[in-house]
Order: sequence, then structure tokens, then C-alpha cells
Amino acid sequence: MRPWEKAIRRVTPYVPGEQPKGGDLVKLNTNENPYPPSPAVLACLRDMDGGSLRKYPDPASSGLTEALGARYGLGAEQIFVGVGSDDVLALSFLTFFNSGQPVLFPDITYSFYKVWAELFGVPYETPPLDENFRIRTEDYAGQNGGVIFPNPNAPTGIYMPLDQVEEILSANRDSVVIVDEAYIDFAGPSAVGLLERYENLLVVQTFSKSRSLAGLRIGFAMGHPRLIRALNDVKYSFNSYTMNMPSQLLGAASVGDEAYFQETVRRIRDTREKAKLRFRGLGFSFPDSQANFLFVTHPGVQARVLFEALKRERIYVRYFDAPRLDNFLRITIGTEQEMEKLFAFLEDFVKKEG
Amino acid sequence: MRPWEKAIRRVTPYVPGEQPKGGDLVKLNTNENPYPPSPAVLACLRDMDGGSLRKYPDPASSGLTEALGARYGLGAEQIFVGVGSDDVLALSFLTFFNSGQPVLFPDITYSFYKVWAELFGVPYETPPLDENFRIRTEDYAGQNGGVIFPNPNAPTGIYMPLDQVEEILSANRDSVVIVDEAYIDFAGPSAVGLLERYENLLVVQTFSKSRSLAGLRIGFAMGHPRLIRALNDVKYSFNSYTMNMPSQLLGAASVGDEAYFQETVRRIRDTREKAKLRFRGLGFSFPDSQANFLFVTHPGVQARVLFEALKRERIYVRYFDAPRLDNFLRITIGTEQEMEKLFAFLEDFVKKEG
Repeated sequence: MRPWEKAIRRVTPYVPGEQPKGGDLVKLNTNENPYPPSPAVLACLRDMDGGSLRKYPDPASSGLTEALGARYGLGAEQIFVGVGSDDVLALSFLTFFNSGQPVLFPDITYSFYKVWAELFGVPYETPPLDENFRIRTEDYAGQNGGVIFPNPNAPTGIYMPLDQVEEILSANRDSVVIVDEAYIDFAGPSAVGLLERYENLLVVQTFSKSRSLAGLRIGFAMGHPRLIRALNDVKYSFNSYTMNMPSQLLGAASVGDEAYFQETVRRIRDTREKAKLRFRGLGFSFPDSQANFLFVTHPGVQARVLFEALKRERIYVRYFDAPRLDNFLRITIGTEQEMEKLFAFLEDFVKKEG
Repeated sequence: MRPWEKAIRRVTPYVPGEQPKGGDLVKLNTNENPYPPSPAVLACLRDMDGGSLRKYPDPASSGLTEALGARYGLGAEQIFVGVGSDDVLALSFLTFFNSGQPVLFPDITYSFYKVWAELFGVPYETPPLDENFRIRTEDYAGQNGGVIFPNPNAPTGIYMPLDQVEEILSANRDSVVIVDEAYIDFAGPSAVGLLERYENLLVVQTFSKSRSLAGLRIGFAMGHPRLIRALNDVKYSFNSYTMNMPSQLLGAASVGDEAYFQETVRRIRDTREKAKLRFRGLGFSFPDSQANFLFVTHPGVQARVLFEALKRERIYVRYFDAPRLDNFLRITIGTEQEMEKLFAFLEDFVKKEG
């Protein structure tokens, strides 16, 4: 190590998932939406004034926060936007979790929570899911420095009904509770309806899944104006101009097309429910996912073996080499045709190997 | 204060500069480029495939880093890209300044250095500029936890010749030295030529000024692969997918059009040198700026009074209400026509008030 390397922060480098290239592949590994963004987004892109890129974007992303406010029945001062929900969540760790008390999140959940806690030196505890991969609400009742969990949870897809979310909220009046709703549009009602009663609740969502805009990096948080102001204060101390001009304009165009959004979400939910029947018919089992993916396991086929076999067919799914997860595959819901290709292969494979 | 607010990080909120709206104004307050981005960028925007926005962008921004590598004669492993140079610099503070020793930067400089140091709890010292607003290289020779300064410096525009940059580097073999070259393309040679001899040097640049792409938010760092790897490790622990698809594609298109870049920079430098003569003729004095702005003062007109008078004419410039700076105005170099409007007003005003 060189002397000038001594003051460098050491982190366990996170390795992003595989992004296979080339055509003729079925990409069901990163929970992207199989449908293109709304025609309103495509029209906005076509009409975009490239000349105005010479100017700084609006640091407050007013057009986008106002569109979101109108969509969710909130004021612009209740909405914070960031570069994907990862940006929003990372800034939330930095902003809200400074008590020195451990922050609570499930042992099996979005893997980035642990990474942020370690990056910012936030202590944490990870209560285990129960034997059916469910969050036990009673584990979140003790003293803590904050609570965060996804709903639906990842990578299980299990949705927690709002009365259980509220159980956690009512047991945590004195710390910030973050509900990470990346997949909520494919599931049941959002916790956004609880904002009126819980000032310490922050609800985080994203444009990457239900809005088909992973390529733009847009996430947002909804909460009490005091939480939003605190997030903005930290954001402005980090980088004033994070949301670029295309994201602000195209994001607002997307929010404006509610009909397309509803229709796309409906199609993915339909395909998911049909996929559940097909998987079950082949002998797979899985938690009852309400997200845009299924988390499946088979008694006769090892997940890792199936993962490799699918890859040889250029069908990409996600494998987690971790305790309790390593005999499961997380499979994104694609188009009907993509799912057809998947099942055509699985029917053959399971018959031979299963 | 509510109990749940106790663990919130308190920062002095940074207030971003004024972004006046509406047409028919002369905007010389944020050092934007008065010319549009390269025609190659506009063509790339017109041809962009909106459908592919449904997918995550390349987390490594390979196309963009390779284009930059080719432009600067470096390998892709020597280049890091971020959401504007503010993102690159903020991550650099978090990554490199962890020794507990004070980081050194000038007392008059880019105002964000202090904000980042405070956000991340990095101790710092600010050696004062000399009476001509110059950095005294001997102030950067003691033990420290790192060094950072802009070249040209802000808001003075003064360029430090490379032999003086090298003096600072040779006195600081054991800590990371960051040269923040936001305005370098309007000035003399970049410190990038010193990378071969100084492994602890990080050179940071931006697409916001010379490349007319402030609206896209693209900054980058060039340095030893070990520095770049450390930055990437921290970045991947914060947010894997920061550079959205439009930024990656349009940024690479911009780097590909060297002729337009050179021509635009030449025009701005020409206008700047002509502006120096006009200001001097009106009795203004100023450091010999090598950036795309001038930092001017007048013996007979108070800066704040002139600032307000210009604003009434819808000519926006930047005023800093701070010791030693509060009788100066920072004025961005605009188009020839914009500068003509500015001088037409100034000639009148200075005659009456000066």
C-alpha cells in the first residue's frame, strides 16, 4: 500500500448484476419492465430541445415533483426526487439514521441496506424472517435508530398488508420508518395512505419498474415536509443538481399518462398470475409474490443447475448464493412470449432432470 | 422538535443560485456556455431509442469512459464518471479524506468544499489567498489529510501554471491531491499531463462549461487506477446506476466532436479577451481570469448597487456577500450579442454613477 492510500475509505465493493449484451436473449434477471415507456414519454423525447441542455436543470425538479404531487394527492413539499430509489435511500440513511442506536431491517431483504449502513457507519440489526419468509412485525417493536423494509419484500415478493405496516408504525413513534415500495404498483395499496397519520413515515418508490424507466434513474420519497426538507438539506450539501434535464421532463411525461401505466401494470400482473399456475404445474413452489417477479424453488432440480442451464439457452434469471436463498431463482415477469420461451424450456428440463 | 427528528443530520442548507425564468433575459450568473451542445449531441438525441429506457443503464458507463480515455490518452481504468463534477468531488471527499488530519483548500475558492467537509465530518484548514487573490504554494507544504484546489480558481478565474501545481504535488507525496479543473479548457494546459509522475493526483473536470452540457450533469475524474477503483468501490456502495442512459450516450457523442469543442472554446476565449478591454476601458479592474467568467470591481460603483441595477435590466450576474468578495461581480462570458447588451448598459451606468 502506498502512503497516499492510507486515508482511502475501505468498503466491500458491491458488484452490480450481470448485464448480458446482444439480441435474441430473454432477460428476466433485473426486474425491468418488459414493455416500453409510455408513448407520452417517447413523444417528449422526440420533441426535446437539445439546445437547452447547455443550461443547468432546475435544482428542485419542480415539474417532476409537481406532477408526482398531483398524482398522489400531496403537496410538492411532501416529495423528494433522486437518481433512482438507491440515491433516495442512500441519502435517507445519511439523513435519518444518526442516533447511534441500531437500525432494524430484515435479514433477508434488499442487499443494499447493509451496504449503506456500513458505508455511513450506521449500526444495524437484522431480525430474521419467519419460516415462510415473512417479516414478524413484533421484531420491530423494541428501541431502535430507525426501521426500513421493502413492501413487497425482496427477493421474495411477499406483500405485507397495511394493517401490519401500521402495527410497525404505531410501535415506532420516535424513529423514522421507511417503507421501500419499489414493487408496490404490482401489489396492494401503498403506505402513502398512512402519511396523514404518521409524520415519521417515509414512503420510497421508483420509476424503474412499473414505469419502464430504469434507464433514466428516477426514484422519489413521500413524507412529512420536515422529512423532505431534511433530505433536501443533505442533498443540497452533496450535489445541488442531480436530476438531469431529460429525467425531469421524461419523468413528468410518464406521470401524466395514467392510463398507459395502469394498463402495463395490469398486463404484468396477469402474466404473473398465469406464470404462478404454470410453475405450480411443473412442481415448483414459491412465496405468493405480489411483485413483478417470482422467487421459485423445485424439489427435484437444484437452483444453481437450473440457473446455468437457462443461461446456456440465453435465458437470464437471478441466482443468490446465500443461506436460505441458494435453492431459489428470482425470475422477472417478462412479456407473454418471453414467458412462453421460459416455460417451453422448463417443461423439457424438469421432465428430464426433476 | 418531534422525537423522531432527533436523529436527523443537521446541515447548513446550501441554497442554489437564482435560476431566473422567462425569455429576453441575459443570463451571465452561472457560468453556463452560451452556445448549444455539438450538432453530434443534437443528432444523438434525435435518434435516441426511447424504448431502451426500460432497461438499466450500463453501471460502468463504458461507452462514455472509453470515449474520454481515447480523448485524453488514458485507459478506461483511469477514468471515473459521475453526476456532474459535484458528485465526483463529493464522492472524492468521502473516499479519500479519511485520515483525521485536516484537508487543505484556499479560503476563497469553490464554496462547496467546506460544505462537503462538514457533511462528512472531514477536518479542514483554509490558507488565505495572497493580496492578489493568488494561492501561495508554500501554504500547502505541511502535514495534511489531502489537498484540493480549483485551477483556474473560483470565483477569481486565476490560472496556476503547471510548475506551481507541481510544487504542491511534490510537497505532498503522501496524501491525495485533487485539482478541480472545471474551467481548464478556457485556460492553460491541464494537470492531466502530470498523472504519469504523480500517482496521488486526481484531476476532475466537467461537461457543464466547455461542452455546453450543464443540463445533463456529467463530471469525471482522471487518475491512477487505484484512485479510480477506490472511487468506484464507494460509488457502487452508494448507488450503482448513477449515470442515466441519455447522459452516457449524449456525453460520448460530445467527446466525439473535437472540432466543435475547440471552436466553441476559442470563441468564448476571444469574447473574454475583448471583454477585458471593454471593462478596463470603463475603469473596472479584475484578476486576469483564464476561465469563462470575469471577476470585476469598480472604484466608483458599489458591486451590490450595480448587481441590482443589472437585475432590473434583466441582466443576471453573480454577487457574493462575503468578506473580500463583496465589492466584486462574477460575470459569465456570454455571446457577443449578450456582452454588447451588458456593455451598452454599463457605459451608461458608469458614466452616471461612477
